[in-house]
Amino acid sequence: MTYPKTALAQTVVELCKSKGVKHIVISPGSRNAPLTIGFTNDPFFKCYSIVDERCAGFFALGIAQQLQEPTAVVCTSGSALLNYYPAVSEAFYSNIPLVVLSADRPKNLINIGDGQTITQANVFDNHSLFSTDLKLDLKDEKHIHSNESVPVMVKVEDRFERLLGLQKNIQTNNEEEINMAINMALMKKGPVHINIPFDEPLYEVVDKLSVSPKTVEVVAKKHDIEDYVLQSCLEEWDTSPKKMILVGTNMPNKIEKKWLDEIAEDDSIIVLTESTSNIHHKGFFPSIDQLIDSLTDEEKEELRPDILVTFGGLIVSKKVKQFLRNYQPKHHWHIDRKQANDTFFCLDNHIETTPNHFFESFLPKILHFVKSHYKTHWLEVKGKRLKKHKEYIVNAPYSDLKVFSKVLKAIPDDSILQVGNSSAIRYTQLFKVNKTLEVYCNRGTSGIDGCTSTALGCAVARVDKPTVLLTGDLSFLYDSNALWNNHIPINFRIIIVNNEGGGIFRILPGHKNTENFDTYFETNHRHTAEHLCKMYGLGYEAVSDEDKLNAALPGFFTESTQPKVLEIFTPKKINDEVLLGYFENLKETPNKNTASDD
Amino acid sequence: MTYPKTALAQTVVELCKSKGVKHIVISPGSRNAPLTIGFTNDPFFKCYSIVDERCAGFFALGIAQQLQEPTAVVCTSGSALLNYYPAVSEAFYSNIPLVVLSADRPKNLINIGDGQTITQANVFDNHSLFSTDLKLDLKDEKHIHSNESVPVMVKVEDRFERLLGLQKNIQTNNEEEINMAINMALMKKGPVHINIPFDEPLYEVVDKLSVSPKTVEVVAKKHDIEDYVLQSCLEEWDTSPKKMILVGTNMPNKIEKKWLDEIAEDDSIIVLTESTSNIHHKGFFPSIDQLIDSLTDEEKEELRPDILVTFGGLIVSKKVKQFLRNYQPKHHWHIDRKQANDTFFCLDNHIETTPNHFFESFLPKILHFVKSHYKTHWLEVKGKRLKKHKEYIVNAPYSDLKVFSKVLKAIPDDSILQVGNSSAIRYTQLFKVNKTLEVYCNRGTSGIDGCTSTALGCAVARVDKPTVLLTGDLSFLYDSNALWNNHIPINFRIIIVNNEGGGIFRILPGHKNTENFDTYFETNHRHTAEHLCKMYGLGYEAVSDEDKLNAALPGFFTESTQPKVLEIFTPKKINDEVLLGYFENLKETPNKNTASDD
Repeated sequence: MTYPKTALAQTVVELCKSKGVKHIVISPGSRNAPLTIGFTNDPFFKCYSIVDERCAGFFALGIAQQLQEPTAVVCTSGSALLNYYPAVSEAFYSNIPLVVLSADRPKNLINIGDGQTITQANVFDNHSLFSTDLKLDLKDEKHIHSNESVPVMVKVEDRFERLLGLQKNIQTNNEEEINMAINMALMKKGPVHINIPFDEPLYEVVDKLSVSPKTVEVVAKKHDIEDYVLQSCLEEWDTSPKKMILVGTNMPNKIEKKWLDEIAEDDSIIVLTESTSNIHHKGFFPSIDQLIDSLTDEEKEELRPDILVTFGGLIVSKKVKQFLRNYQPKHHWHIDRKQANDTFFCLDNHIETTPNHFFESFLPKILHFVKSHYKTHWLEVKGKRLKKHKEYIVNAPYSDLKVFSKVLKAIPDDSILQVGNSSAIRYTQLFKVNKTLEVYCNRGTSGIDGCTSTALGCAVARVDKPTVLLTGDLSFLYDSNALWNNHIPINFRIIIVNNEGGGIFRILPGHKNTENFDTYFETNHRHTAEHLCKMYGLGYEAVSDEDKLNAALPGFFTESTQPKVLEIFTPKKINDEVLLGYFENLKETPNKNTASDD
Repeated sequence: MTYPKTALAQTVVELCKSKGVKHIVISPGSRNAPLTIGFTNDPFFKCYSIVDERCAGFFALGIAQQLQEPTAVVCTSGSALLNYYPAVSEAFYSNIPLVVLSADRPKNLINIGDGQTITQANVFDNHSLFSTDLKLDLKDEKHIHSNESVPVMVKVEDRFERLLGLQKNIQTNNEEEINMAINMALMKKGPVHINIPFDEPLYEVVDKLSVSPKTVEVVAKKHDIEDYVLQSCLEEWDTSPKKMILVGTNMPNKIEKKWLDEIAEDDSIIVLTESTSNIHHKGFFPSIDQLIDSLTDEEKEELRPDILVTFGGLIVSKKVKQFLRNYQPKHHWHIDRKQANDTFFCLDNHIETTPNHFFESFLPKILHFVKSHYKTHWLEVKGKRLKKHKEYIVNAPYSDLKVFSKVLKAIPDDSILQVGNSSAIRYTQLFKVNKTLEVYCNRGTSGIDGCTSTALGCAVARVDKPTVLLTGDLSFLYDSNALWNNHIPINFRIIIVNNEGGGIFRILPGHKNTENFDTYFETNHRHTAEHLCKMYGLGYEAVSDEDKLNAALPGFFTESTQPKVLEIFTPKKINDEVLLGYFENLKETPNKNTASDD
């Protein structure tokens, strides 16, 4: 087999292999040639070539999001690395294991005016779990400068530790550092950064490895719940008639069905889910905004839980955050092995385990269901809201809202749905999504900067199901380079709801339809995806009314010889009124029209 | 007039105004609404709306590069900010005053699971002159949490100071912080970051200012050269028969002509310039690589200077760096008010003033020219090389090299030429550029990530001259969102030399024409600019042979009703051979063909 001659590149590649980092997204460059040679010559790795590092970062994020395995990006020296930062921050807040491998010049060539050179070490420290700046391998060094100490830079597990000066100054070697970095990504699910200096020559190859790096296994910490914690939880639980479980972003099938069934039987518990929670049960509450937007103050007080249990990642609904901050529960427990956000300023218990393990340890110990009308009451409210919802949707004119209702129903069973930020996911949240779909959205930072690339990474990683991206026009145009990708599967589908700008801003108070508003907030434009589709070889179809949309949807998902885009133009001047009317309507008394289903 | 109600936004806007920050590049968002309202309602400011923050950053960089005045970018909270990083790093290494104004949530909403929120404070610290994290203005705060101290974060003037723990922990107020940040950008010419928290409501307006922030003037430090420094320089100078002046990136007309003339008369001085030096004199040496590539070891020893004087920014030529590292001068002086890079590992004098001021203080004190053959000898060599160059170019087949020779001659007098990285600038360096052109290239980090956006910012800032961008296909495609810009002047021109991938990598040893090489190094593609031009309303013309190129060039620069792109396809399989042949040819004895001029 062919290996890079550089020992340090061999070490990095061999350790990635032994730790199962299989998917490698490479951007072109010269300084990273030793890594590129190493990864692409070993059939263990599945390599992808993506030129724009911003897209490469999100593409790798999409792969890692699906496989929940460390996925690597590899780039050359200089500002290339900085283009990964949006994806790194999304990985950080969405707990996705992303391994950044940046090639660098030797330290004596940094900040002395050499080309394509920046201060790469620790550049992601605000948003990474671990970073290390490797030293040249002695095997590779031809002329070590005597006055050059080349220490391994300090590792940063926690940026607060660094700020407080608490970092450990232990000397470690490259092997240990690489092991630590990948283990951290594995254990704690997040981004890590390995900065790797290479001296010239960069392109030499050998047919035997000169290194045999030692793999340090991850020691999985057992996350048992302390008895006294469990006991105190049980006491609170057994005396609380109002318990709310709120689920953030969550991988499908992560929670065993028997626990969900058991929870659903308890009248003192209501379970609020979002589209991205990937949890479905007929006794749960899937459209939070629909439920709580039009509550009176009295009703809100009535809905206030005694205990709030949260698990999963970030919450999409602004309304539920506002509600729970204003009507705080007595207790807020968050279940997560890694961290707990004090989103509602009343967190009092971080249960450091997985939700499944918590339910397994906890639910069987509950002696009796607390007598309560909490759930039945809110199921009634839910029923009323749903009726209103259906009435409104069926009568709504052609608009963003109407389009989302149609599109969400048309997506074939057992698809993966990737949703863009921000209006796309907010509209999606208003509907009960087909429970055979898996739903994902970059809610770590809620950016529009990489939705398409993430969806593509997902599509490539998940050959078992087709992936559909549902996105707005600004998100789509922002990440247009995503389509510069030779790996797009032919069953990949993109649906763009094009309202000619940031329609989401029209919902906001004041200013709309002034020139300033149109230019700087809504950023009006007349661009479409048509030319990009031609450029990158995707099928393209556009519709701009309801009949055409109805006609186009069924065929759009059938088998094809190329990936396809459906662009749906909506009337920007009425979209906001239709949405505001939707929430207005939830408040009023029911009218007599019967509703079709939605 | 209309002002944002938020006092802190008023303070930021008023201080930008009083300090002359006139050009404001705004990306859409909600959190930054108070700033957007403030800037766009005051006719003092020239505002631009650009959605993709990566492009917005480079567009602002292009404006600031030309005006040498602080130019601001404004974005919403979250990962938006991170997309500025490539431009921030370029600004840092190219000494361009870029003011980043990022809106943020109040500190109590950071890292608690709120949407579109990251740790924005200090995120550019590896590559900024100054950063500050403002606190909410007391006027704006409705409910201050008693346990919240909201201190101003520590400012970082020098990241090494921070690493050494030497930062000052002085408590300052927002006004002082904003003044310091903009003054730093003004004085030290580089990027600064002001992070600005806003609480809701974000869209309210008032018709009177509630603040009157105090402007702290920049106190310009006088940079006189100490007498003993000057004396010691003079002594070395007067006894050195071999003096080399090497000019990095440099603004046109920055050095007074009389000093250049005086230097040109001295036979002991040779002046090496690059395309980006923007200095022209018939006695100087404008094509460094042409001159030094084929020198024998004896000739190199002969060329080794006693004194090397450098000024300007980074050096493009790798060959001259390699030469001067191997044949180090006895002395290396760098003239710059701000910094001196030890590029050749022999820097012994940082003269902290402007080149003009140095020449003014120094040159009149020189008593006599040192007798020397240094210059006349190298002018002879230059003459021989130029003859070879012309012979080769005229006989060269259609290729990148030939195309650059044609294009560079065709650009109309008095244009601004923006050149892309990296092959475009390297090819350009081989030719003597029309001295009426101004030439710029992002050589701070030498990235391909923002060449088009930078050129557009330049074109918008410089209405006095037309701007031409000369770039490769990868650079152009990478920054394709640059064209999503409503401000492109109709006289803007882009010339893309499309060799279907990173042709520059073909020059490198080994591997070429293997599948791995084509995919991961050269990143072969068949994409063109045609669809993007249609999408964004630019004229488009493509040529793929010499005759068509000759026919297209003259008309391409004439007046038009829309900006235009000329895409020149070159044969990728021979480009590298033609270039290698060029350098090979410089070595051989002259043949008998007469050369046309080039």
